[in-house]
Amino acid sequence: MQRWKLTVEYDGRPFVGWQRQDNGPSVQQSMEEAVQRLSGEVVRVHGSGRTDAGVHALGQVCHFDLEKPFTGLKLRDALNFHLKPAPIAVLEVEAVTEDFHARLTSTGRAYVYRIVNRRAPLALDAGRAWHVTRPLNAEAMHEAAQVLVGQHDFSSFRAALCQAKSPVKTLDRLAVERQGEEIRVHAAARSFLHHQVRNMVGTLELVGAGKWTVDDVRRALDARDRAKAGPTCPPDGLYFLAARY
Amino acid sequence: MQRWKLTVEYDGRPFVGWQRQDNGPSVQQSMEEAVQRLSGEVVRVHGSGRTDAGVHALGQVCHFDLEKPFTGLKLRDALNFHLKPAPIAVLEVEAVTEDFHARLTSTGRAYVYRIVNRRAPLALDAGRAWHVTRPLNAEAMHEAAQVLVGQHDFSSFRAALCQAKSPVKTLDRLAVERQGEEIRVHAAARSFLHHQVRNMVGTLELVGAGKWTVDDVRRALDARDRAKAGPTCPPDGLYFLAARY
Repeated sequence: MQRWKLTVEYDGRPFVGWQRQDNGPSVQQSMEEAVQRLSGEVVRVHGSGRTDAGVHALGQVCHFDLEKPFTGLKLRDALNFHLKPAPIAVLEVEAVTEDFHARLTSTGRAYVYRIVNRRAPLALDAGRAWHVTRPLNAEAMHEAAQVLVGQHDFSSFRAALCQAKSPVKTLDRLAVERQGEEIRVHAAARSFLHHQVRNMVGTLELVGAGKWTVDDVRRALDARDRAKAGPTCPPDGLYFLAARY
Repeated sequence: MQRWKLTVEYDGRPFVGWQRQDNGPSVQQSMEEAVQRLSGEVVRVHGSGRTDAGVHALGQVCHFDLEKPFTGLKLRDALNFHLKPAPIAVLEVEAVTEDFHARLTSTGRAYVYRIVNRRAPLALDAGRAWHVTRPLNAEAMHEAAQVLVGQHDFSSFRAALCQAKSPVKTLDRLAVERQGEEIRVHAAARSFLHHQVRNMVGTLELVGAGKWTVDDVRRALDARDRAKAGPTCPPDGLYFLAARY
């Protein structure tokens, strides 16, 4: 038996999310079916992080075990062949030892969130970025983001359905930068609560629009109450960037 | 009567191209119908450059005349409303005098061509970039591109259907740069022949792959024979970037 680590890119729009669900196609199911088609083996593909419906990945990491021998390059090309026409691409394949686990042994995850800040609708980026029409001050958003960096109880930014044991997480980085009409929010942590990135970005947007101050963000964090922070922003702009081991 | 200059973004995939044709939806037709829906006036929308089927625009420029009075901001928002659900966005609207003509008075056009150079298929950029799996040397491509810069008879890079009076054009810029797995080719000229950018990029790809030398490109140019240059690359990676006046 060989354990394989994969780095995967996908367009989240046609999927109910990473995880297998009864209500539609998932990335996990597409990958498990592709593995079965190429090897005849029924496997469970474990992802580094679950992404929600409509959330994209530039570097999701997952693993599974195969009895049948492959080379990494052969496995990558065969998987990409069998994944068609799903918008999923296996970028890299690496043979790893059995102590590797995409979710359990990851020591860091990184996401990027794209906002296109302009009046006109999105022709090329529809479904791939959050379209915000009111003018946003990215510097104010970045300043407010620094309130959230560090170890905190993130209950105010946690989805009701979140299954994590503790709401305490350490946010390593939350950086906001503007390039022309696009604002990117970079987030990095060992792990995140469910909807944490989207709830933080939804809150920072209020700051960018001048509706909230840095102190409002601090108060929302301290309240440890989801109702006290800003709204959950849409999945469209969220990209799973990388997982570290 | 007021003449309006528009800057427009579109996803070229669902269209037969910029120009009205009998065989499917065009950007021009979508825009003319949107103008008619909002104003009741039947207009001809003139584009700065015709883009082929599948070619995108980040900054196509066009103009049309309206009897009914509008403010620029109102016209932009109303056009974007009436363009839905077509993937076309009016970015800017400017009132201009009648001596402005999107095509005839343009003094420069710029395109960018995106190549994604990797083995794995494109999940997020399918239809938006040319997927080239063999490794390309972008520096060699840039060097060869400089052979094409300047005033030349571009017959070797001209589509058979090209309606330009002369094959002589002055190419102001043809720059190739790699950022990670993406190679971008920037092209700028007063005007281009039909398929000129795609035929030049198709030729440079041969250089990047090591199949052609800089001298081969020079010989292809000097031959003034379409059969002597490289293939036409796909429309997927081509973006109309800007028009200058």
